[in-house]
Amino acid sequence: MLAEIKGLNEECGLFGIWQHQDAAHITYYGLQSLQHRGQEGTGIVINDGINLKAHKGEGLVTEVFSRNDIEEMKGYSAIGHVRYSTKGDRNFENIQPLLFHSHTGNLALAHNGSLINAKRMRALLEAQGSIFQTASDTEILAHLIKRSKQPCFIAKVKAALNMLIGAYAFLIMTDDELIAALDPSGIHPLSIGKLGNSYVIASETCAFDIIGAEFIRDVQPGELIIINKDGIHSDIFAPQRKMAMCAMEYVYFARPDSNLRGINVHTARKNLGKQLAIEAPIDADVVTGVPDSSISAAIGYAEESGIPYELGLIKNRYVGRTFIQPTQALREQGVKMKLSPVRGVVEGKRVIMVDDSIVRGTTSKRIVKMLKDAGAKEVHVVISSPPIEYPCFYGIDTTEQDELIAAGKSVEEIRQLIGADTLTFLSKEGLLKALNRKEWDQQNGSCLACFTGEYPTITNDEIQNDKDLMRAVSID
Amino acid sequence: MLAEIKGLNEECGLFGIWQHQDAAHITYYGLQSLQHRGQEGTGIVINDGINLKAHKGEGLVTEVFSRNDIEEMKGYSAIGHVRYSTKGDRNFENIQPLLFHSHTGNLALAHNGSLINAKRMRALLEAQGSIFQTASDTEILAHLIKRSKQPCFIAKVKAALNMLIGAYAFLIMTDDELIAALDPSGIHPLSIGKLGNSYVIASETCAFDIIGAEFIRDVQPGELIIINKDGIHSDIFAPQRKMAMCAMEYVYFARPDSNLRGINVHTARKNLGKQLAIEAPIDADVVTGVPDSSISAAIGYAEESGIPYELGLIKNRYVGRTFIQPTQALREQGVKMKLSPVRGVVEGKRVIMVDDSIVRGTTSKRIVKMLKDAGAKEVHVVISSPPIEYPCFYGIDTTEQDELIAAGKSVEEIRQLIGADTLTFLSKEGLLKALNRKEWDQQNGSCLACFTGEYPTITNDEIQNDKDLMRAVSID
Amino acid sequence: MLAEIKGLNEECGLFGIWQHQDAAHITYYGLQSLQHRGQEGTGIVINDGINLKAHKGEGLVTEVFSRNDIEEMKGYSAIGHVRYSTKGDRNFENIQPLLFHSHTGNLALAHNGSLINAKRMRALLEAQGSIFQTASDTEILAHLIKRSKQPCFIAKVKAALNMLIGAYAFLIMTDDELIAALDPSGIHPLSIGKLGNSYVIASETCAFDIIGAEFIRDVQPGELIIINKDGIHSDIFAPQRKMAMCAMEYVYFARPDSNLRGINVHTARKNLGKQLAIEAPIDADVVTGVPDSSISAAIGYAEESGIPYELGLIKNRYVGRTFIQPTQALREQGVKMKLSPVRGVVEGKRVIMVDDSIVRGTTSKRIVKMLKDAGAKEVHVVISSPPIEYPCFYGIDTTEQDELIAAGKSVEEIRQLIGADTLTFLSKEGLLKALNRKEWDQQNGSCLACFTGEYPTITNDEIQNDKDLMRAVSID
Amino acid sequence: MLAEIKGLNEECGLFGIWQHQDAAHITYYGLQSLQHRGQEGTGIVINDGINLKAHKGEGLVTEVFSRNDIEEMKGYSAIGHVRYSTKGDRNFENIQPLLFHSHTGNLALAHNGSLINAKRMRALLEAQGSIFQTASDTEILAHLIKRSKQPCFIAKVKAALNMLIGAYAFLIMTDDELIAALDPSGIHPLSIGKLGNSYVIASETCAFDIIGAEFIRDVQPGELIIINKDGIHSDIFAPQRKMAMCAMEYVYFARPDSNLRGINVHTARKNLGKQLAIEAPIDADVVTGVPDSSISAAIGYAEESGIPYELGLIKNRYVGRTFIQPTQALREQGVKMKLSPVRGVVEGKRVIMVDDSIVRGTTSKRIVKMLKDAGAKEVHVVISSPPIEYPCFYGIDTTEQDELIAAGKSVEEIRQLIGADTLTFLSKEGLLKALNRKEWDQQNGSCLACFTGEYPTITNDEIQNDKDLMRAVSID
Repeated sequence: MLAEIKGLNEECGLFGIWQHQDAAHITYYGLQSLQHRGQEGTGIVINDGINLKAHKGEGLVTEVFSRNDIEEMKGYSAIGHVRYSTKGDRNFENIQPLLFHSHTGNLALAHNGSLINAKRMRALLEAQGSIFQTASDTEILAHLIKRSKQPCFIAKVKAALNMLIGAYAFLIMTDDELIAALDPSGIHPLSIGKLGNSYVIASETCAFDIIGAEFIRDVQPGELIIINKDGIHSDIFAPQRKMAMCAMEYVYFARPDSNLRGINVHTARKNLGKQLAIEAPIDADVVTGVPDSSISAAIGYAEESGIPYELGLIKNRYVGRTFIQPTQALREQGVKMKLSPVRGVVEGKRVIMVDDSIVRGTTSKRIVKMLKDAGAKEVHVVISSPPIEYPCFYGIDTTEQDELIAAGKSVEEIRQLIGADTLTFLSKEGLLKALNRKEWDQQNGSCLACFTGEYPTITNDEIQNDKDLMRAVSID
Repeated sequence: MLAEIKGLNEECGLFGIWQHQDAAHITYYGLQSLQHRGQEGTGIVINDGINLKAHKGEGLVTEVFSRNDIEEMKGYSAIGHVRYSTKGDRNFENIQPLLFHSHTGNLALAHNGSLINAKRMRALLEAQGSIFQTASDTEILAHLIKRSKQPCFIAKVKAALNMLIGAYAFLIMTDDELIAALDPSGIHPLSIGKLGNSYVIASETCAFDIIGAEFIRDVQPGELIIINKDGIHSDIFAPQRKMAMCAMEYVYFARPDSNLRGINVHTARKNLGKQLAIEAPIDADVVTGVPDSSISAAIGYAEESGIPYELGLIKNRYVGRTFIQPTQALREQGVKMKLSPVRGVVEGKRVIMVDDSIVRGTTSKRIVKMLKDAGAKEVHVVISSPPIEYPCFYGIDTTEQDELIAAGKSVEEIRQLIGADTLTFLSKEGLLKALNRKEWDQQNGSCLACFTGEYPTITNDEIQNDKDLMRAVSID
Repeated sequence: MLAEIKGLNEECGLFGIWQHQDAAHITYYGLQSLQHRGQEGTGIVINDGINLKAHKGEGLVTEVFSRNDIEEMKGYSAIGHVRYSTKGDRNFENIQPLLFHSHTGNLALAHNGSLINAKRMRALLEAQGSIFQTASDTEILAHLIKRSKQPCFIAKVKAALNMLIGAYAFLIMTDDELIAALDPSGIHPLSIGKLGNSYVIASETCAFDIIGAEFIRDVQPGELIIINKDGIHSDIFAPQRKMAMCAMEYVYFARPDSNLRGINVHTARKNLGKQLAIEAPIDADVVTGVPDSSISAAIGYAEESGIPYELGLIKNRYVGRTFIQPTQALREQGVKMKLSPVRGVVEGKRVIMVDDSIVRGTTSKRIVKMLKDAGAKEVHVVISSPPIEYPCFYGIDTTEQDELIAAGKSVEEIRQLIGADTLTFLSKEGLLKALNRKEWDQQNGSCLACFTGEYPTITNDEIQNDKDLMRAVSID
Repeated sequence: MLAEIKGLNEECGLFGIWQHQDAAHITYYGLQSLQHRGQEGTGIVINDGINLKAHKGEGLVTEVFSRNDIEEMKGYSAIGHVRYSTKGDRNFENIQPLLFHSHTGNLALAHNGSLINAKRMRALLEAQGSIFQTASDTEILAHLIKRSKQPCFIAKVKAALNMLIGAYAFLIMTDDELIAALDPSGIHPLSIGKLGNSYVIASETCAFDIIGAEFIRDVQPGELIIINKDGIHSDIFAPQRKMAMCAMEYVYFARPDSNLRGINVHTARKNLGKQLAIEAPIDADVVTGVPDSSISAAIGYAEESGIPYELGLIKNRYVGRTFIQPTQALREQGVKMKLSPVRGVVEGKRVIMVDDSIVRGTTSKRIVKMLKDAGAKEVHVVISSPPIEYPCFYGIDTTEQDELIAAGKSVEEIRQLIGADTLTFLSKEGLLKALNRKEWDQQNGSCLACFTGEYPTITNDEIQNDKDLMRAVSID
């Protein structure tokens, strides 16, 4: 159980709309465009003016919602959520949005991110009589709002948010309003759009394009956006710290057609690839990328280096949740699953294989072998980000530190392990330059913690050791 | 919302088992045998010694649990629930058992019955900072246990139960024990059985027969049964009031093969039919019963009266949740759904039609018409219970008082309305005599509140009006 | 494969309707009421005036047809089929109706019954170049019609039917007409009804009651009913032989609310029970029937004998295709499946258990043990039909002769084997008397072949041995 | 019906394996890799040494086959099929492989392609007494084999194939052998591979890569490959005509990782793009391709022209069969479905949009508008194939000739209609050069009929008009 009550919310996708006659349909399409941010489960809470109702389930948006389901969700406002698959926690009750009923009104919550002080907060709340039905960090905010002594709902929300430490983008819907909040470091993206006369909020701008909405602006760190019958309002619940937009959102997580803090993701990735080609010129015949997230970087590398870009690896588009995984025996006989090499492209060639990152190294090893089995003469692995040496506390699933291959090994050791002819990582400076970001900066700061170990918020260890800190966030 | 937070739990079915290697399978078969107590939703919580895990869903036991689901539920103890369909509340989160995770341990709860003071308790708990994720009364007990200042878990449970007013049978499972509790009036049934060395608890004894378990005894009103590694223990959490076993459990709700407080349900119903024949001798050609619940009473009536018992009405066995309901137009053309008359049996005959009760009268009217359309010369409706004139606060779905046909109308008025040639209800005295029960009695008492308006507990109105009462059940 | 190409069609259910605006819906409800005649698979072919389209699937009517499916079946005429489960043949392609497309028009066929000369006919047709896509006898008729040299369609059908030997009720739908045909011995039932201005055909009259149609008359042996834009027409394709209506349809197969050749099935069964009580008076405390098919006979026995009828056995209503069968280990621990004894009724009693037939004896043995385990002091088994000593060639699934317990054993040997205190079978004379039938009779004849070995048609063996016979039915 | 009995089989995917212990699993993965060739329906026939059994259904391979389904398909040889979606023909019975049972043995057939003389052959066969259960061309071959007077099975197959005109790749499985056949012009691809000691046959070589098999060689036009217990054998059933490998397989249909007649598809497409850049140099800022099929050509164009390749259009990966299509109203509000523009890439830019072909022009028009709405300053459409002016009779779904936008319109007219700033098609010569093919050639010929109207076989019209031709292919 302990494992379950540590910070559970990982990178997810959020979508909300206020006062639109097709609220459920629009939310369906919005979530669909954010599906890459989470495939494990999804849910929508609809507000029909009288009540809030939830429909949730495990799986993809298209699996969870039938036409009937969407048509029955009558109402003018909605929030929705897509959830990332994390190991060991597939309980239905953790699928968001969470919905709470009370005689003073209803409350729906959806969350993207991960809290540093989740465990402490749960313990404090439980000690005071709260009971938790989910293992989700999101439920903590609901309890904090409920227990707040502040006189009005917005004041309660602001007080509650101030007790949280970590990365969070929240959508909160009550009977009367839609609220969006972003943590003071702005670690994950959250943007505001407009569709006709209705406001929409989404984790990524690609959701606006797909529903035909206009991008208005990003939510600012520490900002509270309140949308209700009086229109849209901005409030501040905490002073903005240095902005620390997660670099990995650019590197691999976001959709290429989204703009994050004004920068197009595909373009950013292409720049990473170009920068790599400058930092690591290699004599080779073809450049190929690991689909889908490394395609843009590979194109950039090819463009900068002049080496032709080719489809050296193909992703099987029809592998979904119901795909029958090959048994170990079949895998050893060579049955492939998601990725297959293009023999006609790599056979006899010196191949530059661009990937976005190396976490445990097992996938890279498998792909290098696959390319060599298909006849590649040399495989040069170039990674469009620096080595990941530190754990992420903010939601990116970079696994435990002791499983991070780069945490204890040199680049040469990793190269040997994955069987590549050469291995190059992008430098931290190159990363920032390509993204046009700075590490610590009010406007253009980027979180590089997983590369550097320097975290934009206090960390788990600090919380454990510093009693004063705990007092500061005590809930009474 | 108000509608949703009034007492929501209706008649349901409970099953629990402690320490059996096939816990999930046994619970599946146990719930299956209790399916008549609730077809809307079902769930099982399994205890694998380390954690509690839930699997729930809408629909029948066979629809919610696949072979895979059951096989993946590895563990040695389990509780399960089948839920009755109540209008207007089909939210997934209300499906039981409810499961709560906390750093001090897990808690699963399943409930049969309905609480009188649910609304008040929710309000009090919410005022103290509790938030509710379900509209179910069951969640109240969880909050009360959590907030109790008692030093140990069993003491907390006992204190919490003492704050509840109404009808309740609870199954509570923690990491270490299985607890069963029955309200001090013993309104609904709950029995203890033994399967090999394992103890089982079920709402009805038919569950023991189907799994091959031996019946041990009924849980007593106000009793707490605790099953753990040390065996089975009995405790008292409240003094037993006069026993008030619900008469409608005998009349129509329970399965004919169950024994309730030592009396076989089929036999009880047959006695009701015999008593009816004594009270209301009718000159007719055939006796028929409305399947399935009135078959036994019809057989009793036939046996006592000497008029042949016939299958005058047939129930369509294959009408389930996925059955396509006929449109109004098709119904008017004569398309039937669940019930059809047996023309070959009723044509030209004077028919005695035995039914268990009349609630709104619409069903009776439809069946009388069906029999007449099939050629019955006369239709004499005899009802194996007295007129239902008062609402039930304890879980039987007898609808709102103003919809009860018997609440405002004379027997003659009802007869005209349903189109019967004669209409007879069983007398209250006849009911008690046939069931071998008394209205107010420590050992053999039966709740007749829906016939008499005399409730075994305080009522909703009394709670609303009496401030002292509220203090008595205040939670601090 | 040999096993598959012997006569495969068993007892099934047929429904057809010509020119009704709700043809698909009506067929759905009609098939639903015939579901007891086959639960393995079902299909509907709809005629939209231009084309015939099929929708079929494995399982119950409610499983195979969603609301969408039925709504998309636009058309004014339809035929449908429910298929009985026979071991070893679950191939999708055998689900009926079969549909054949040709440039001269479409042809849909549905069949109830079993052909004696199926194997020979297939061999002859294959030798002449026909290929078979199903293992179903029905396909033979399609080939015979297609190959017929007769000048018009009706003449082709009549010629083709004359080549078949065995039991058959056929529904045939083309673009322009609906045709019904019954074999010259009239072994299985087939009736005509009227719904408004539309004609309907069904295997049993219960289908008329459920859709609100009026019964017109039974199809006669050797008769061809043709329904088209000019109305309804009767034709004769073969001289009627002595009528040989299957006795087992009365005994256990048909629905109690159907009338077969003018006799209500429930009443017929009750008479069987009464006759049994006359033939075999037993001193006992209670009479009980094995649900559902033996309930009526048990009621009759009770009525005649004066011994009270009780529900000694309960059928679990919610056991369907998706029910998880208990493992052998769980069964040995006492987990029951479909049937459970009512301890409260049988404990300490001398029980008369009425069943409709004994085939292999294993079920009877299990039920006797179940009653004794539940405390029955004595179990007297009375069977409302004579011993089944001969195989059925006409569709009733009485299994291979060497598996028939009555084929090689005396009544006393069977009694010992099933563990009953006494065992009584109804006499053949008693059967005919109770059903008001005669064995060989033009109007009221009944097929008793499974009891007597005297078959109303030539038999398999005769076909094998008689070359002249084969010539007589040669296909060109 | 007429519509249905014209040539129905379109481009599909075939996979077969002989004697492998994981035959069903391997076929599942093989079909999965061919899923792009057909998403409407799929089926596998397994040979367990005694019998052939089919499992089929509508939808994707992962939707039709559950783990259970595959595990229950015990056997050592199998053939499978994925079927392309064609309008107006969704009858279940058309899903392949087709399976025929006969007392002389079983026969399973799967087909890729389309027959010119299908309608005639059906009429001839029906006139001789054959009946058809499917609208599929494949069934014709089964009848022809069955009716052949040749002395042995292989001779029958060869005679039957000689009666077919058109494009066809067949897999035939009997109890004893697996047979592959390719039409004398070799219009569609079919290749032989080896997996351990087992032979495999597949429509594309990508299937070999995914299962870890080794490519052996392509099946030759007019060749019959016979695999049985004696190994693999090659036979000729018809003299090879000039090879006429379909050019559209290279242009858009096949998977980029497949090799067709020795040429890698991705490389071929890239060459098409390069050739386009040579033929049509355009002054622009970015090159983008319509995903997925035009990506390779766009990369080629970019590489040759030096204009950067960018992701200007994103395909929504999660849009499947269950996706809820936006209503017309939502579409007009701007809700997109499968494709969305990358505003951050195209805004303010002159965009070269590479697509593989224009059929009706509606899709091109929509994409051009989408790019302009996203801010593209200019949109230059370049098409990596010549204008499609003639219908395809061989299976490629290029629709009816009168719907082909290029059939009646000039390039300038098309440009205006789709709203592009310029529009360029690849020349026929450029196409052949890029593919390294010749139009009429024994070894390297390619079918360009849809561009030129010159067909490698006789055509529909010729068949209609030439009685002698019909005699030549008469079936007696």
